[in-house]
Amino acid sequence: MSRPTRPDRKAEPPSPRDRILEAAARLICEKGYDAASIKDIADATGLTKAGLYHHIRSKESLLLEIQHYGMDVFEEKVLSQVVSIADPLERLKVCMEKNVLLVTHGWSKEVTIILHEHATLTGEARSQINARKKRYVRFLESSFAEAVRAGTIRPVNPKVAAFAFLGMVLWIYKWFRADGPISAEQLAREMQDLFFGGLEIKPLSAGAPRKGRRT
Amino acid sequence: MSRPTRPDRKAEPPSPRDRILEAAARLICEKGYDAASIKDIADATGLTKAGLYHHIRSKESLLLEIQHYGMDVFEEKVLSQVVSIADPLERLKVCMEKNVLLVTHGWSKEVTIILHEHATLTGEARSQINARKKRYVRFLESSFAEAVRAGTIRPVNPKVAAFAFLGMVLWIYKWFRADGPISAEQLAREMQDLFFGGLEIKPLSAGAPRKGRRT
Repeated sequence: MSRPTRPDRKAEPPSPRDRILEAAARLICEKGYDAASIKDIADATGLTKAGLYHHIRSKESLLLEIQHYGMDVFEEKVLSQVVSIADPLERLKVCMEKNVLLVTHGWSKEVTIILHEHATLTGEARSQINARKKRYVRFLESSFAEAVRAGTIRPVNPKVAAFAFLGMVLWIYKWFRADGPISAEQLAREMQDLFFGGLEIKPLSAGAPRKGRRT
Repeated sequence: MSRPTRPDRKAEPPSPRDRILEAAARLICEKGYDAASIKDIADATGLTKAGLYHHIRSKESLLLEIQHYGMDVFEEKVLSQVVSIADPLERLKVCMEKNVLLVTHGWSKEVTIILHEHATLTGEARSQINARKKRYVRFLESSFAEAVRAGTIRPVNPKVAAFAFLGMVLWIYKWFRADGPISAEQLAREMQDLFFGGLEIKPLSAGAPRKGRRT
């Protein structure tokens, strides 16, 4: 990770820069990227145009910054929390839990939308973000492959498993409501059970039901 | 389903209307909805503006028609193929297979993107499409609930299971390449194994490995 590490967002209020990026993300999702002018964005962030230009160079650089911000938070809240877990199956399970919690209440939904649905970036900017996303895919793939080699999950195609994991987790922003009947913690548990219940090879000697199973 | 049933798309070439909708979808994805003018869309479909207006009333009605078209194809290729399967677990498995095949090579990727990422529709148009999407979610939820009652899958929250299924399957358009190393059929099989492997309660009397498991 070549970018500076950010302080924990739960421990301290968001920086002015983060607040600008979140407000800009909301406006871009609401109006559309083409329709949102720099003036609109300045208004939404409570700045003058000159004040906004103190933080960003252009509308495209703002879009890039929003996506880097989304990846920064993701890497801080998910990836960096799990990379050092030695057991690959445990690493993947905790990773799913952390990622579900991030998508459900970790940062603004609009940042997530811009990270996963906006194809407006081009050239070098696009490559930068794609490289950061690919790092996560590679991490998942190599963890699945490692767990297969360790014999703790049955043979799966690591690429299919990685994208199935990602699809299940990232689709959450499209349907989950924090004030709905399912809590974020319950969702994380249910998804772990759904996903890993089918992957684990149960040790033949174990008589007790596995942790997390409800039958 | 209140709209007229369409003929099978593999059996005959797409209608002029379908070709217009697919070409318009590609252009809207490429340029963005706001930036794509009616003139651009007419050019992309090989029509004059007047010719295009013979088929559609306005740019917004075109966006709505693209989404209805996407739902029509989905209902024809997936939902209508599986609703009559009596066993809920079998129904869900075949449904996943059909949906994976549709997302991988059933219709244009741009229609999928417009169906799942475009929030530009408002009011009544938006409600129409959301109602059709919700019908699929309800179908999945009730099938999961039915399978739990039948004792063929372990207890799951039907809503979480339905959206986990959808996320896994619909995320495919974001990463799958038809010319990549994984075939669409292999992907469908791997996803069924991944998803249902963890749901099925194995009958205690069964000595042979289940169909589709590779251990």
